Amino acid sequence: MKHGFDPDDHDDVDIYKLLIGLVVPRPIGWIGSVSSEGVRNLAPFSFFNAVAASPPTVLFSTIRAGGARKDTLSNVEETGVFTVNVVTEETVEAMNVTSGGYEPSVDEFEVAGLTAVAGTVVDAPMVGEAKANLECRLSQVVPIGTDGPMAASIVIGEVVRIHVEGSILDGTRIDQAALRAVGRMGGPTYTRTRDLFSLDRPE
Amino acid sequence: MKHGFDPDDHDDVDIYKLLIGLVVPRPIGWIGSVSSEGVRNLAPFSFFNAVAASPPTVLFSTIRAGGARKDTLSNVEETGVFTVNVVTEETVEAMNVTSGGYEPSVDEFEVAGLTAVAGTVVDAPMVGEAKANLECRLSQVVPIGTDGPMAASIVIGEVVRIHVEGSILDGTRIDQAALRAVGRMGGPTYTRTRDLFSLDRPE
Repeated sequence: MKHGFDPDDHDDVDIYKLLIGLVVPRPIGWIGSVSSEGVRNLAPFSFFNAVAASPPTVLFSTIRAGGARKDTLSNVEETGVFTVNVVTEETVEAMNVTSGGYEPSVDEFEVAGLTAVAGTVVDAPMVGEAKANLECRLSQVVPIGTDGPMAASIVIGEVVRIHVEGSILDGTRIDQAALRAVGRMGGPTYTRTRDLFSLDRPE
Repeated sequence: MKHGFDPDDHDDVDIYKLLIGLVVPRPIGWIGSVSSEGVRNLAPFSFFNAVAASPPTVLFSTIRAGGARKDTLSNVEETGVFTVNVVTEETVEAMNVTSGGYEPSVDEFEVAGLTAVAGTVVDAPMVGEAKANLECRLSQVVPIGTDGPMAASIVIGEVVRIHVEGSILDGTRIDQAALRAVGRMGGPTYTRTRDLFSLDRPE
């Protein structure tokens, strides 16, 4: 027996909870950016995914969530660049520290004790401790919904450089067991990715 | 020691493999649609995520991958509607069957032995066996890249009705242990989501 929910009959927060509980597991885009004044920012977004290979493209969505614009969105719009840093079991606690609601003047790399490594082709900081990093150039921002307290902006970026630790690399294949990526579930819940299985595609 | 990959120096397929190996775990949007002539379609997309809560919005990306336009994209552009069906351990084998490259005249619900349930507010089929379904109306299609063999289209849709099995529901919270969602990793690899943990957000 299924229950039906009409978004018009429910609070935005309730519908948000249903969505983040049902669209799982979500990859975590740990986004590094810098303001035009040089303040570094690092924050995790789970409304994140790859969307294309030619050119290689990723996107993440920022939600205003009742408050001011996210520093990440402001920075990316100002500078046109960002990095994506892969979150694994080794870095998940530090990732969580960077999810706090810090003032724009705060450098989350410092707060979380992480090494900021300069991008090689874009001027945005990468997490040295991450097993892989993507350097990205802003392609476009797609606004979703009206300019209210839950207004969202989809940030679409082209991946212009990929950095991968040798230990997780087998040619251009990523060793998923060695990667130990972490995914986001509903509420404060995360999942490890150790419980792997394969399926052969139908002919 | 990290290896650097410049997408300009590598084949699109190699960069694609790196991306799908690093942006993990990806949620699976099992998309139900129907052609203007009434042929049902069902296919999984892992370049899929939620992106906004007001209005509740999801997106998925279709890649031409050397061949013709995907039936799903044609159907959604023709009819303006689609459904998202949540993939769990119980339905993952059937999901895999629907990932085959079938002719437009083939109904993947029939091929996979699944029950097509009519949407209640949109004219698109839902998977009866899925523990949850989202009925969606097309908001916009964002093309990515040039019109080549790997051309991608991001399909953005508003969620207009959510159906959830009572057994996984606790108010508007989803019981992740009861859901048993499956995520997509690199290559033919999937992950279960039983290995859960929680982190408290920083203050």
